[in-house]
Amino acid sequence: MTTQTLTQINGVNVDQLVATVNAVQENPDIARFQFRALNEWIDGGHSRTTIQGFYGAGQEDTSRSHPFVLEGDEPPVLLGNNAGPNAVESVLHALASCLAVGFVYNAAAQGINVESLSFVLEGELDLRSFLGLSEEVRPGFESIRLTYQVKSDAPREKIEELCNYVQKTSPVLDIIRKPVPVTMALMD
Amino acid sequence: MTTQTLTQINGVNVDQLVATVNAVQENPDIARFQFRALNEWIDGGHSRTTIQGFYGAGQEDTSRSHPFVLEGDEPPVLLGNNAGPNAVESVLHALASCLAVGFVYNAAAQGINVESLSFVLEGELDLRSFLGLSEEVRPGFESIRLTYQVKSDAPREKIEELCNYVQKTSPVLDIIRKPVPVTMALMD
Repeated sequence: MTTQTLTQINGVNVDQLVATVNAVQENPDIARFQFRALNEWIDGGHSRTTIQGFYGAGQEDTSRSHPFVLEGDEPPVLLGNNAGPNAVESVLHALASCLAVGFVYNAAAQGINVESLSFVLEGELDLRSFLGLSEEVRPGFESIRLTYQVKSDAPREKIEELCNYVQKTSPVLDIIRKPVPVTMALMD
Repeated sequence: MTTQTLTQINGVNVDQLVATVNAVQENPDIARFQFRALNEWIDGGHSRTTIQGFYGAGQEDTSRSHPFVLEGDEPPVLLGNNAGPNAVESVLHALASCLAVGFVYNAAAQGINVESLSFVLEGELDLRSFLGLSEEVRPGFESIRLTYQVKSDAPREKIEELCNYVQKTSPVLDIIRKPVPVTMALMD
């Protein structure tokens, strides 16, 4: 009889997680990823992003048979038609989904069972810069406030410790809290 | 005879755009917006964000009868099931949709007809920080490279000038290029 034990915690394959960490430790080059998106403007405030391939773990990923399609638009008060969330709302989504992954994967690695996890996010924005009416106000969020709720088998101190660790290693939190260089070039 | 001229350029109601700018100039308080998102973890790397209400222009917005629902997940190589794009890919979507709105609205305000507009985005990321294997590597994108293509009735110099202006006033580009304070609190 062949015994295969699949260690799943929080829906995360912990054996694969450990194997991934070990593989990267042996060969740091496989940690280099390039993620991509293509966006096409539709009309007014409405544009559409398609996301499919990426490079990582030493090769082009082919796991996605179809692209993800994401809509972006503005609400009527900002001259759009609500064909999708607006861009800064999508930033809040990116942040939350990043923290969810970070929290759940690290909980799994530590053997903490998460029953539920949710985030509420609020971002404050002054539109005057976007509208060309102020150079003193910044265009982006002045601040983001996030609260989260966790149900798990770990004590509160353990959850807070985990959260502190997740904050240090979250890609999107890092992108928001610290400067990322962005180059833009017009093609012919 | 009543004449109603609706000035639409690039699908943007330019009269409403001008009225909005004037209204904010008279009363800067209406430029204060609060955007929101709620995220709930589903399983493994999969979480779901709902986005509906926001505060802006002096009141709660009620234009959206249903929430937008956005999925976040990881690909199999990152221990997920491709239920949605991953978090850093969603950042690329947010950036592109922001630049699309900024470009098209400002083009409309200047009377530039945009025929087509598209963005290609690439973000470089080293996973070692997320995996807890390096404190020297940053968790987020090391850099984002963006190229764009425009077809319009304006000369290339005008398009480049417009693009420079959009870069200065884009909320998401500002969020990515400059630090935004984020607070996180665990609820009971």
